[in-house]
Amino acid sequence: MLANALGVLGGMGPLAAADFLAKLAAATEASCDQEHIPLILYGDCTTPDRTASILGHGPSPLPQLLAGIEFLNAARCAVIAIPCNSAHCWYDDMARASRAPVLHIVEASAQKVRRNNAATRRVGVLSTEGTHRMGIYRVSLERMGFAVIAPTAEDFRDLVSPGIADIKGNRIAAAQDKFDVAADRLLARGAEQIILGCTEIPLAMQPRCATNPHSVVDSTLALAEAVLAHFGASKAPARAAAES
Amino acid sequence: MLANALGVLGGMGPLAAADFLAKLAAATEASCDQEHIPLILYGDCTTPDRTASILGHGPSPLPQLLAGIEFLNAARCAVIAIPCNSAHCWYDDMARASRAPVLHIVEASAQKVRRNNAATRRVGVLSTEGTHRMGIYRVSLERMGFAVIAPTAEDFRDLVSPGIADIKGNRIAAAQDKFDVAADRLLARGAEQIILGCTEIPLAMQPRCATNPHSVVDSTLALAEAVLAHFGASKAPARAAAES
Repeated sequence: MLANALGVLGGMGPLAAADFLAKLAAATEASCDQEHIPLILYGDCTTPDRTASILGHGPSPLPQLLAGIEFLNAARCAVIAIPCNSAHCWYDDMARASRAPVLHIVEASAQKVRRNNAATRRVGVLSTEGTHRMGIYRVSLERMGFAVIAPTAEDFRDLVSPGIADIKGNRIAAAQDKFDVAADRLLARGAEQIILGCTEIPLAMQPRCATNPHSVVDSTLALAEAVLAHFGASKAPARAAAES
Repeated sequence: MLANALGVLGGMGPLAAADFLAKLAAATEASCDQEHIPLILYGDCTTPDRTASILGHGPSPLPQLLAGIEFLNAARCAVIAIPCNSAHCWYDDMARASRAPVLHIVEASAQKVRRNNAATRRVGVLSTEGTHRMGIYRVSLERMGFAVIAPTAEDFRDLVSPGIADIKGNRIAAAQDKFDVAADRLLARGAEQIILGCTEIPLAMQPRCATNPHSVVDSTLALAEAVLAHFGASKAPARAAAES
């Protein structure tokens, strides 16, 4: 049995899980393999689409999410991370079923907004329509005192949802164009920071993330940083503490 | 239990395993999550260094490799892939202990050389010193009729081994400079194709891989393609068949 391992409930989608593991490895303070965090990834990409379920167009992903949580607990994982924002609409059910603590990607991302700039008041959120409908970012951010700006129904229909489908079909460049327009519209409406609140979205927005590290919050990276904080393995603990 | 899943014995190193998952997802013929291959990754990055063991400087990784094989078999994985070339020095022990078939990264890479260009006679191999000492590429390639060109002892010492250590310490640019010189020296000695026979090496050589798709063999990608061939999920089955 792998001792003190991270459990990753992934496959939603497969590329987002790979991106999470790459960001976790790159952000780890390590000089050799053995200083990284051991992990087990349960990648059930056959989990029903989260947004389709929320919009009433498909079956619930919950049984398969719980099967993954059960698997990772049976493997004695010390903590669980789920690099899929929409899956967090079922967070309470998963956390209740888990002996291991389950990190929360929305909380990790919301906290990063504050670390980035304590003066920020208005936060834009790009997410799946499912995550938006369930209000998980709105609730967390409003509780922290932020005003939340989300894409309009038209922008979900024409930009965000088709962009996420592009990623899942491996059309990265096509997705980037759509996400860039959607992000610019949030900025035009007054957003001071933008959360990429779907783990598919950062896959197509690395240039914008790289050039705007303190105003674009990559939820995949925020979750990786929460994992590193949990294990005390962050590359920049002093800096993170100074920012918070 | 996840049905018909790929088992991945990873963590060697962590970034290489993430790169493998990303290449697998990108090469899969899929328009949505559910059409990808379900998988379980057992990422034990605490597995002792393979090359250090082969050179007699450290403990054997075999017990931990076998623990991973046992875990993936207990999870009923249908087939196992190991995105670490050096770990294949213990391939026979792992394959013997596994109910599920274990794909062989060296065989996958050697076969890709032939698919790339049937006229190639001389193949350069960049690998860890451990993989080189154990001769696993030399044996496979010579059996197929290729002449093998490996780095000199000095190039292992000054370029290849330090470059791999750079990757494991997240110094990608520093690694790229070293690998590029080592690859150029193999070409100067007559290599017609070069296998990147360590899954850390492609992480720093994506530009060269992209511009030389038929003369640089990325062993990570070759293994991903072998997985897709196993599952019949390749994006380009017609092209692969035409090349072989």
